[in-house]
Amino acid sequence: MNTQNDWICPNLSANERNHLCLAGEDVADLAKRYGTPLYLMDEARIRNRAQTYRTAAEQAFGSDSRILYASKAASFKRLYEIMRDEGIGVDVVSCGEIATACLAGYPMGNAFFHSNNKTDADIAYAMDRGVGFFVADNAEELYAIDSEAEQRQIKQKVLLRLTPGIDPHTYEAVSTGKVDSKFGFATQTGQADAAIMLALSLPHVQLVGYHCHIGSQVFDATVYLQTLEVMLRYTATVKKKLGFEPKLLDIGGGFGVRYTSNDPEVDIAANIAAIGRRLDQLCSELKLTKPEICMEPGRSMVADAGMTIYTVGSVKDIPGYRTYVSVDGGMTDNARVALYGASYTVLPADKMNEDRTLTVTVAGRCCESGDILQRNVLLPQSVRRGDLLAMLTTGAYHYSMASNYNRIPRPPIVMVGCGAPYLAVRRETYDDLTALDQ
Amino acid sequence: MNTQNDWICPNLSANERNHLCLAGEDVADLAKRYGTPLYLMDEARIRNRAQTYRTAAEQAFGSDSRILYASKAASFKRLYEIMRDEGIGVDVVSCGEIATACLAGYPMGNAFFHSNNKTDADIAYAMDRGVGFFVADNAEELYAIDSEAEQRQIKQKVLLRLTPGIDPHTYEAVSTGKVDSKFGFATQTGQADAAIMLALSLPHVQLVGYHCHIGSQVFDATVYLQTLEVMLRYTATVKKKLGFEPKLLDIGGGFGVRYTSNDPEVDIAANIAAIGRRLDQLCSELKLTKPEICMEPGRSMVADAGMTIYTVGSVKDIPGYRTYVSVDGGMTDNARVALYGASYTVLPADKMNEDRTLTVTVAGRCCESGDILQRNVLLPQSVRRGDLLAMLTTGAYHYSMASNYNRIPRPPIVMVGCGAPYLAVRRETYDDLTALDQ
Repeated sequence: MNTQNDWICPNLSANERNHLCLAGEDVADLAKRYGTPLYLMDEARIRNRAQTYRTAAEQAFGSDSRILYASKAASFKRLYEIMRDEGIGVDVVSCGEIATACLAGYPMGNAFFHSNNKTDADIAYAMDRGVGFFVADNAEELYAIDSEAEQRQIKQKVLLRLTPGIDPHTYEAVSTGKVDSKFGFATQTGQADAAIMLALSLPHVQLVGYHCHIGSQVFDATVYLQTLEVMLRYTATVKKKLGFEPKLLDIGGGFGVRYTSNDPEVDIAANIAAIGRRLDQLCSELKLTKPEICMEPGRSMVADAGMTIYTVGSVKDIPGYRTYVSVDGGMTDNARVALYGASYTVLPADKMNEDRTLTVTVAGRCCESGDILQRNVLLPQSVRRGDLLAMLTTGAYHYSMASNYNRIPRPPIVMVGCGAPYLAVRRETYDDLTALDQ
Repeated sequence: MNTQNDWICPNLSANERNHLCLAGEDVADLAKRYGTPLYLMDEARIRNRAQTYRTAAEQAFGSDSRILYASKAASFKRLYEIMRDEGIGVDVVSCGEIATACLAGYPMGNAFFHSNNKTDADIAYAMDRGVGFFVADNAEELYAIDSEAEQRQIKQKVLLRLTPGIDPHTYEAVSTGKVDSKFGFATQTGQADAAIMLALSLPHVQLVGYHCHIGSQVFDATVYLQTLEVMLRYTATVKKKLGFEPKLLDIGGGFGVRYTSNDPEVDIAANIAAIGRRLDQLCSELKLTKPEICMEPGRSMVADAGMTIYTVGSVKDIPGYRTYVSVDGGMTDNARVALYGASYTVLPADKMNEDRTLTVTVAGRCCESGDILQRNVLLPQSVRRGDLLAMLTTGAYHYSMASNYNRIPRPPIVMVGCGAPYLAVRRETYDDLTALDQ
């Protein structure tokens, strides 16, 4: 029997057949129809998160605030359509993401182009598709943006990526606001000042704001309050020194999500309200015009909308060691465990009524010892070949990080929660895998 | 000036234009023609390695020995053609690899199908394509192989994957011969005995041998000598108990490769000769018929044939911290640094004559702090946007592990070393990236 503890997101339930349901849809039925491994995404949950962020931001920051979906979390055509419908901007990090957004008919004036390495070709491609805002990471990019804009006789709106020197105390791989970062211009070293002066001097660059991003999996407002403080005090200093005040301030990514019941649940609206209050205080204290605030949730927009369904292939008990349960997916569809040792909740999707008393290691199918999907998972004693396992909270950084290692095709994405389930991304075929071979 | 130290593979040199050359081809010219990031592979080196392994195995183990290319290291059509030409068998781990080998016209009777999780559909697909040998990992697979073979009225040749309980003292992610492994049947727990009895009892399974694999990046014969000892003593015990003696013994992967000058150079022929001598001794001592020996080099067949060329996008010196050099590739084309902290040699491909006195961190282009390609790289003080960097020894586990994270297209593979350079795998386009979107 699964404890209430496992229901880490309100879109989870079990039905009378003892099958796990996502947004009320029987995941075993979906597995039968679409095959496994299978990504599921709850469109209703995504829309709900988008609305929660947008409403909270409008109330806390004003009607000119923007919520941008950080689409590197999950980039496929249907998501850009949903974001367009919900009035959400997008943060894109490559021409591949721009191409996908364009395919969805996304209004590119609401797109912000990030990345620490934009080639001349990238800049040209993005300008030709009308990307609204470029977030410049380095001086070379500023010159290249100016040059491409000059060729098109336009003035390109640009934000500067600044690093305010804050360590969010999350793990290093997602800590990007420290001074020692590959990203942006440090406010503490004089490099941000120099970048602002350069941007202001370039005739085809229109400097409109600052961007910063401190880190991911942040569970309350503290780090944002600290960021606002550093960024607005810096803004006031620059205003005094250079007379420049930014119209936009992008404070970076959203809040953390629940991978397991150990992760706290975040009250997004309350935390954004707290950030809004601090913003008003600081602007008043520092005599700054309140900037238009952007926030860039990615993970928290889509992660708990997602789930991966696997089929068990073998159960191997090694006496005195452990029990391995091998499934038909692995590090190819979930890179996060191999990369970060990430934790997940795993449920026996078609045996939700059975007691879970067998501790197992869920192993992926790749020919690599490191392809372990999760350790210390509790499953029913009856687990065997053909059973289904569900791994929760896989909507972010799964499909987007998927590979064809071991020449394994990527799973499809089926959307649920808004009417009948439908295919948003089809399963890769063996012909797809060899399409690039000459 | 680059020291002799950097020439970690004999296919490297510099020309009079001070450009790096691979197999005599100017890599800057190739970068100009094919764009960056760019994978290069030296076909002559691959053929040389294949011949070295095959000749050494024939001399040490006899003419019935087999060298199998572990194609998960790099799986694309052209490689299977090269292996076919060179009389090398292939180790495949998925139907995607089987499909690719078939596309190349590879004779599938010489293919060995590994993996710890073969679905019924996988087994059917492989049998329908005439895969010669199945390496069964678990009991469920044995039953499924028997059932599919029965439907086809054939007797399928099968090897059993055994885990001899040897820790090669390499890093855990590539240590697969320990008792506590997701792979195979442990010889020490009675599970291997049970699997042999099961295989012998199944009417449509023809048990022909044992397979084991101890680990990767092994730099001498020691671990193979130990493996032979354990496996042949186990073989003798089983012969006594069950009267079964295997025709084939697959002793697993090949030898280590040089990522940097700190890695030793392996004399493949001498090490294989040492394994051959121990094989003869042990077979004589244990009164065993000498089995046909298989070895499965993957990495050492292709790694140092490969190289990745990047273009520098920015050089960012953070005073008091470090200098970041961002390039136009990253963890999408090289997953090994993010996954294993792997070390590589990086060279200034179009400034080979300049003193390298600037210590930098080479950063990838992905929007993720963890996307660092290599730390403590020495480059010329003059390094700037537009310069080319070459990362060496990227022929194995690069293209095969590549992802589209950040929606970044995968680089092409250009072959050099046998006649004019040619494209083996074309560059992925933005249209390819969205081909699965519905």
